[in-house]
Amino acid sequence: MTKLNWGLIGGGEGSQIGPAHRLGAQADGLFNLAAAAPDVNPDKGRDYARRLGCADDRAYGDWKEMLAGERNRADRIDLVTVATPNSTHFEITKAFLESGFHVLCEKPMTMTVEEGEEIVKVAAKAGRICAVNYCYSAYPMVREMRQMVATGQIGKVRLVVANFSHGHHGNAADADNPRVRWRYDPAMAGISGQFADCGIHALHMASFVTGDEVRTLSADFASTISSRALEDDAMVNFRMEGGTVGRLWTSSVAIGRQHGFDIQIFGETGGLRWASEQPNQVYYTPVGGRTQIMEKGESGLSDEASRLSRVAIAHPEGFPLAVANIYVDLAAAIRGETRSGLPKAIDGLRSMAAVHAAVSSAKQNGAWVDARPPSLR
Amino acid sequence: MTKLNWGLIGGGEGSQIGPAHRLGAQADGLFNLAAAAPDVNPDKGRDYARRLGCADDRAYGDWKEMLAGERNRADRIDLVTVATPNSTHFEITKAFLESGFHVLCEKPMTMTVEEGEEIVKVAAKAGRICAVNYCYSAYPMVREMRQMVATGQIGKVRLVVANFSHGHHGNAADADNPRVRWRYDPAMAGISGQFADCGIHALHMASFVTGDEVRTLSADFASTISSRALEDDAMVNFRMEGGTVGRLWTSSVAIGRQHGFDIQIFGETGGLRWASEQPNQVYYTPVGGRTQIMEKGESGLSDEASRLSRVAIAHPEGFPLAVANIYVDLAAAIRGETRSGLPKAIDGLRSMAAVHAAVSSAKQNGAWVDARPPSLR
Amino acid sequence: MTKLNWGLIGGGEGSQIGPAHRLGAQADGLFNLAAAAPDVNPDKGRDYARRLGCADDRAYGDWKEMLAGERNRADRIDLVTVATPNSTHFEITKAFLESGFHVLCEKPMTMTVEEGEEIVKVAAKAGRICAVNYCYSAYPMVREMRQMVATGQIGKVRLVVANFSHGHHGNAADADNPRVRWRYDPAMAGISGQFADCGIHALHMASFVTGDEVRTLSADFASTISSRALEDDAMVNFRMEGGTVGRLWTSSVAIGRQHGFDIQIFGETGGLRWASEQPNQVYYTPVGGRTQIMEKGESGLSDEASRLSRVAIAHPEGFPLAVANIYVDLAAAIRGETRSGLPKAIDGLRSMAAVHAAVSSAKQNGAWVDARPPSLR
Amino acid sequence: MTKLNWGLIGGGEGSQIGPAHRLGAQADGLFNLAAAAPDVNPDKGRDYARRLGCADDRAYGDWKEMLAGERNRADRIDLVTVATPNSTHFEITKAFLESGFHVLCEKPMTMTVEEGEEIVKVAAKAGRICAVNYCYSAYPMVREMRQMVATGQIGKVRLVVANFSHGHHGNAADADNPRVRWRYDPAMAGISGQFADCGIHALHMASFVTGDEVRTLSADFASTISSRALEDDAMVNFRMEGGTVGRLWTSSVAIGRQHGFDIQIFGETGGLRWASEQPNQVYYTPVGGRTQIMEKGESGLSDEASRLSRVAIAHPEGFPLAVANIYVDLAAAIRGETRSGLPKAIDGLRSMAAVHAAVSSAKQNGAWVDARPPSLR
Repeated sequence: MTKLNWGLIGGGEGSQIGPAHRLGAQADGLFNLAAAAPDVNPDKGRDYARRLGCADDRAYGDWKEMLAGERNRADRIDLVTVATPNSTHFEITKAFLESGFHVLCEKPMTMTVEEGEEIVKVAAKAGRICAVNYCYSAYPMVREMRQMVATGQIGKVRLVVANFSHGHHGNAADADNPRVRWRYDPAMAGISGQFADCGIHALHMASFVTGDEVRTLSADFASTISSRALEDDAMVNFRMEGGTVGRLWTSSVAIGRQHGFDIQIFGETGGLRWASEQPNQVYYTPVGGRTQIMEKGESGLSDEASRLSRVAIAHPEGFPLAVANIYVDLAAAIRGETRSGLPKAIDGLRSMAAVHAAVSSAKQNGAWVDARPPSLR
Repeated sequence: MTKLNWGLIGGGEGSQIGPAHRLGAQADGLFNLAAAAPDVNPDKGRDYARRLGCADDRAYGDWKEMLAGERNRADRIDLVTVATPNSTHFEITKAFLESGFHVLCEKPMTMTVEEGEEIVKVAAKAGRICAVNYCYSAYPMVREMRQMVATGQIGKVRLVVANFSHGHHGNAADADNPRVRWRYDPAMAGISGQFADCGIHALHMASFVTGDEVRTLSADFASTISSRALEDDAMVNFRMEGGTVGRLWTSSVAIGRQHGFDIQIFGETGGLRWASEQPNQVYYTPVGGRTQIMEKGESGLSDEASRLSRVAIAHPEGFPLAVANIYVDLAAAIRGETRSGLPKAIDGLRSMAAVHAAVSSAKQNGAWVDARPPSLR
Repeated sequence: MTKLNWGLIGGGEGSQIGPAHRLGAQADGLFNLAAAAPDVNPDKGRDYARRLGCADDRAYGDWKEMLAGERNRADRIDLVTVATPNSTHFEITKAFLESGFHVLCEKPMTMTVEEGEEIVKVAAKAGRICAVNYCYSAYPMVREMRQMVATGQIGKVRLVVANFSHGHHGNAADADNPRVRWRYDPAMAGISGQFADCGIHALHMASFVTGDEVRTLSADFASTISSRALEDDAMVNFRMEGGTVGRLWTSSVAIGRQHGFDIQIFGETGGLRWASEQPNQVYYTPVGGRTQIMEKGESGLSDEASRLSRVAIAHPEGFPLAVANIYVDLAAAIRGETRSGLPKAIDGLRSMAAVHAAVSSAKQNGAWVDARPPSLR
Repeated sequence: MTKLNWGLIGGGEGSQIGPAHRLGAQADGLFNLAAAAPDVNPDKGRDYARRLGCADDRAYGDWKEMLAGERNRADRIDLVTVATPNSTHFEITKAFLESGFHVLCEKPMTMTVEEGEEIVKVAAKAGRICAVNYCYSAYPMVREMRQMVATGQIGKVRLVVANFSHGHHGNAADADNPRVRWRYDPAMAGISGQFADCGIHALHMASFVTGDEVRTLSADFASTISSRALEDDAMVNFRMEGGTVGRLWTSSVAIGRQHGFDIQIFGETGGLRWASEQPNQVYYTPVGGRTQIMEKGESGLSDEASRLSRVAIAHPEGFPLAVANIYVDLAAAIRGETRSGLPKAIDGLRSMAAVHAAVSSAKQNGAWVDARPPSLR
């Protein structure tokens, strides 16, 4: 099978997310890194692109150069990944979609709800895939949970509790570190800090696993380090369309928590628990029964979980392979196959609406507000 | 040292809390079960009291008989434990205090804030101890956390996150089981279900460990099993007097959680984590450093933690010994020593105010309300 | 029910094991501490005995005084606990048995196999109970495992793996600390160090849970701190009468392990795992199925496990209550009831034979030797 | 940087190890799968090779065809991975080395010690790399432990305890399943079953982390399923050159253990613990101090651990990336850089000597034997 051509924007040398995309796109031999504009500094970017294996004429200084260069090539890239600073996602994604490229956009897809609505429309009009990198949803055992809920194995879902709390921004002495500071600066991060940065992964996960969407929410935001304009800790209560009660705590000052992203789903006939730091297990408890430890790779899992498991049971698979699963599904989708689990522009739009709703609620002392984008009410 | 004479009201045969009190009071040889009125059925109660070792004339049919019988004895009981149904706590506790007995009352101490205020006054006037059985606070490692916070080892506390969630009432088919049903029936349980039953332990713990008190709160209640008049799941956000942000989730429909009572405390220079199902460890992370596993019984713990540890490091100590620690402190306090960690009537009063505040907030869609009793504003 | 009278020899102020016996004997209100000779120093012992509540004439200076004082009392003690230094167990136990007292002896029951054989005979002749404090066997979930094996729930047992490894003697600088040193000094500890001290608990547990006995063994001993005459680390392979393969690792230099006593039992149709630091759970895996977490107090456990559980599910119970369970069974046995799980003199004898066999094997570079006492071959 | 050309022998469709090699070799974009002979069935193999992206003339029917085809190409493969059935490793590896190819051989490298000696010589003579896929050694936190030991952070190593036990062959009804049966059939597996299959990973790990080699050993083998000619459970005690005591338990009938490969290293001043199912943490305990949880990606780790970490702290990395780390080091070594951690032919030789020694010891009832290959005594 010929490899697909892949382009990368952002994710430059030393970036946090770049390695995950390169590992993810390349691991299965489905994509060939053909073009890149990885750095905000054009020369550094071209140099790094060449070192990553791009031909000289496809080692670009910026995304506009890349768009111009790729647009008319016969061997143009099949997919572009947008891993630039958040505020540029909208414009780049839109431009590439309009030129007929498939796009994988890092989250957040946009900064406003309006932009989100526009991306949804542009992608539809162009007939291109616009995926958003909610990659945690591609862990095999997350897919398994989703399948279990969908097939009624825990009954109607009453309650979902999702957390994404870490302590890596808990050091006040570090608050001026540029790698930290921008996340709490409205000029760079937008209207929300920790909720938009991490909490939104948990909210997407709640929707993904339950197969339901958030309808209303109430938020309590706090800046526990007072120099921060944006929240570093948030609690969001929500209700889903089907009536499920939701609880979501997110924090960046929870010193001692490393990557505390976990979810619990409680239904009428059972409960499920999963944590991103040990992504290969799910704890399942049927009502009235004992908790069972489900393992990635065990026999009897759903086709979806089995398909996305790569190595034998209890050989751990981690974050880079979750990203790789996104690329596996993208490759299939680009080739015309159906992949229902791929997070798309509409998910990016819903997230943006939820962020704006949470900010609005927090400003109104926790008033309950509609969490849906206008077009989906 | 002569044993103190102990009386027990409630905690009859087959009750859930009775064994914990008997083990707790007797384990250290400090109390002798001299009198009991353990059952709502007088004959069953007298019979059981005798089997527990009470003399015939001190095996009582009910608490009034016991009060009458004990009041004028030379060897009258030094302490009475009130472990009856919740709605009777106020009247019994008040009567015994007024007759000059020390009391250990099960939680909730009262059903209303006004009653709580009255017990505080009565105890003060009588000069008697009125303790409330927030026994989790007597685990050695809980005392250690409290001491660490008090001595600044995690700096100013920014955030406290306390949960008490289980799944034992998650079976709708079981909702009519009398052992479950009463907890959600206002006629028997009062104005709150799960929050008053379990959440309040978490709220007390938050205050106990931080050494601070809750000032305001906002609550979201849900009855996920629709036949329930009272909530079976609740989220309470709060702010403490010193500015600490609080998050408290409590649930009885979290299928798969057994006794999910845990607390995390995040300060400027460190974080702490403790869970009641593994009560002998605390996870402590200094900011910028690695998480350390602290063990009950390790060298270098505070005097308070060391005093309440009974057996060598890593020999687990459990719930009955936490209750025993309450009795150890009570025995000391009755003999005139100072024991600062003993939960008292004022804690029972604060809890009751918080329950009423949470119910009020939940009815107002999460409006922020004052959580303090009128006398303590 | 009248309390039984209890006597305690050893377990003086500051001892490690004394508190466990006092908590264990008193917690259920079944025993009254009537007599004690707790200290090697007669005056200190008498003083401490009085402070523990013994009458002046029953606060004894040593065990001989106690034997003389109790022997002819009408209200003489019903049970005596022997918690003195190991080398004195035989003589004290024998003397009390011969005078018609029931005895609970700390392990090791004796120093030689011959002494062990004698205690078995003396107890039989006297018609008295001689129990040995293998208290870990009294945890509810250990009893549950035993019942599961006995009723065939994991099929024929193929393999048992038991460890008892800690790191508390791993500091060479501490090797001369008298609390540590004696354990590796043949003059005080006998012929074996860590295996006799801790490993033997694991070996007893292997027999207890499988309901089978060790037939042959091969041992590898090491003194990893070279100043030690006796082993501080040992591996013992064994075969049981029914053919089960056994593996037992014990160490006192495993820095980082606190109380690493755990057991795994693997049968034809399932596996079990239990660890003493989290004694309230058993991990059970049926062949071909998922691992299930069994909880103390869950519904459906065996009568034996239910009987010895004191408080509700997921309220942890710890070491002192395991000791209390031994006393509960002793009280019943003294009153004439049958209690099959109580470790007795024959278990103490088997342990001593295994210790001597292991030492012999280790000296012969791991030669396989008979592990049974002569009388039981 | 131009990609290196990579060839794969074995690892065909549906194989267990094939995906790990493809993910590992491709993830970093360092190798291009240029040639493959993946299947024992030539036609199936050629077809699969083409689907994996090999050109038609480099989709080979077997390894001899591949050797002939690649030997004289200008763009011949830079590295060949040998992932065929065990008994063929020697002949293929030898042939490719002799033709000047670098080789990554799956373990076991050979079936006899003599073959192992020969591979070492052939590789040296050819001046080619012969690596062996002890990939667990390439986990970042394993490298960190090795560095900690090498720099004296736990002092002189007294004791190493390594286990590799699972339960996947515990079902007797499954013993005739061809995927299981061959492992216990001397005609296919050689002289050892579970020890050669899994235990040897643990033995390599013990050497790798301590930087020491096994000198003597004593083994106890058991076939707990009686139809098996080879052992399914083994205990191996050993002594290292520097005096370290070793304990190694391996089993395939430990029902409930999934991939129980873990190691504990105990030195004079500290202890370390790592488990392959949670490979991103190391538990480190300094003597007299608390256990600390070390995390992959935390600041302050060794260069070696940092270099092999790909994504941010607490984003788990798993088995495929450990394999990828082997390929990263191979690419560097092929380009002439020094990579000290790469397992090589000499490690494969030592393993084979240890397997033969263990079999010999087990036959002699655990007699201590020399575990070293003749050339290294």
